[in-house]
Amino acid sequence: MSLLVVGSIALDSVETPFGSTADALGGSAVFFGYAASLLHPVQMVGVVGSDFPQKALDRLAERGVDLAGVQRMKGESFRWKGKYSYDLQNRETLETRLGVFAEFLPRLPEQFRSARYVFLGNIDPELQLSVLDQIQDARFVACDTMNYWIHSKRDVLLQLLRHVNVLMVNDSEARELSGDWNIYRAARWILERGPEMVVIKQGVFGAVMVNGRDIFYVPAFPLEQVFDPTGAGDAFAGGFMGHLARTGDLSEGNLRRAMVYGAAMGSFAVERFSVQRFEEIGPAEVTVRVRQFSRLVYFDLDEDMPDDPG
Amino acid sequence: MSLLVVGSIALDSVETPFGSTADALGGSAVFFGYAASLLHPVQMVGVVGSDFPQKALDRLAERGVDLAGVQRMKGESFRWKGKYSYDLQNRETLETRLGVFAEFLPRLPEQFRSARYVFLGNIDPELQLSVLDQIQDARFVACDTMNYWIHSKRDVLLQLLRHVNVLMVNDSEARELSGDWNIYRAARWILERGPEMVVIKQGVFGAVMVNGRDIFYVPAFPLEQVFDPTGAGDAFAGGFMGHLARTGDLSEGNLRRAMVYGAAMGSFAVERFSVQRFEEIGPAEVTVRVRQFSRLVYFDLDEDMPDDPG
Repeated sequence: MSLLVVGSIALDSVETPFGSTADALGGSAVFFGYAASLLHPVQMVGVVGSDFPQKALDRLAERGVDLAGVQRMKGESFRWKGKYSYDLQNRETLETRLGVFAEFLPRLPEQFRSARYVFLGNIDPELQLSVLDQIQDARFVACDTMNYWIHSKRDVLLQLLRHVNVLMVNDSEARELSGDWNIYRAARWILERGPEMVVIKQGVFGAVMVNGRDIFYVPAFPLEQVFDPTGAGDAFAGGFMGHLARTGDLSEGNLRRAMVYGAAMGSFAVERFSVQRFEEIGPAEVTVRVRQFSRLVYFDLDEDMPDDPG
Repeated sequence: MSLLVVGSIALDSVETPFGSTADALGGSAVFFGYAASLLHPVQMVGVVGSDFPQKALDRLAERGVDLAGVQRMKGESFRWKGKYSYDLQNRETLETRLGVFAEFLPRLPEQFRSARYVFLGNIDPELQLSVLDQIQDARFVACDTMNYWIHSKRDVLLQLLRHVNVLMVNDSEARELSGDWNIYRAARWILERGPEMVVIKQGVFGAVMVNGRDIFYVPAFPLEQVFDPTGAGDAFAGGFMGHLARTGDLSEGNLRRAMVYGAAMGSFAVERFSVQRFEEIGPAEVTVRVRQFSRLVYFDLDEDMPDDPG
């Protein structure tokens, strides 16, 4: 089942207490693509400037990412510069240079228009809607957004929500969108506006999936070393959507497994700078980690502990 | 298996965005006792002043709490006054009046000295040690502490750690004790100082149990309404220790179940002011809630979703 992502392709300069990067590969489409392509081929839609390293694009292509929807425009690539606090819980944007991203109008090549699984990364909700307009028969659409759009394009965002299956945001975004501090009430507020389900990401505290019937909680993987939280949410989305596209199964049980794949990919993203960790791992490491999640939350009210399922 | 708790017995005045209480029943021993007594009889050690309502003690006795270790001294009972922020995530202590608690010296009645399961609530670590000195043959000892003791009685606290099976603290306490921001490294630091396991409570983000071999994570129960977080940690301890004392089973699988009972009791504690929610529920409600936890985290990497196990 074809899986499409639209989002930013960026060069990130990140400072953390553990080091820094300059013009490292980043952006929502890139983190999504690196994670999802461990599970399933990806079609990518985005834009890069004339200065964007071709080698980085070649690496994505080698991983099974179809770049037919990535335009190269004259001008500078999107650059983001940020600095994290000592505990990695807060970050400050030092500089944003939109470059060619400011004029980005997603155009889907013909062969992408039959995509069945679609992830709309965090871009202007008008552009997110324009992507959906170009797709004939999507089966499952997930979208992300950010506080900037919640405030500046609220009406368009609410219109978009009527056309997506899942809104996937972090807790502060869910709160700002709904105006409710309690994330479960916030989720209900969002569900009343269109999506069948809401996934609320809570960083080191895991993620929760809420639909009309059910709540499922997956913790963050316990890590003693976290290097760089950048891209964890998009890697989560990549794991979630990659698993769904690979299996073609939207049952409750499989959506839960997709959450675990999401959490696994999020945990890989933060273990190194940029997409570095994804360059080191393959499907075997993914399988080990999702099995470790089983053990992390396993309990049985009626029976004894089994041998290590991992 | 006999279960003993030592801790504060207090009159709390709490302000939250949803209302306030004045001189309501509180204190670590009380929240522990209310929760644990839903699962197993409790022996309580503490002190109250001459102004403490006898009716409140009678209610504890009716629930199966043996008050032979509760001294009534001349003077005022321990009073705590606090105010929570709009989101209940922070609280300010407005007033602490120690009263008779300042002179509290735990004295265990003869029949309490054979207790096998012991919870040392958050009191001066010297007093916690003096309780252990009075107990002949404890099988499983858990203790709590707070930042005040971590700073003012660090050496005694470290001495105490060599005599307990589990340290049960919140995340900020684990960080202050270890000097490490990462809670998994903090847990390892603590394990190296004596306890076989560490339970780190993270409020609305659940709790994690770490031992030398394993990490187990239980989320907080998803609640759309939280009234008053006071006592949640002690209720958690009550559920954890009550389950262990009732079953007499310290296997890994049963410790995990104990964590779930703890999380269930913590979730009841916050649903009303003071111990009010515990006055409304019985074993049936506890059973329903622990089964809801099963569903909250259930996933199977290989099989389909079963019917609702709740």
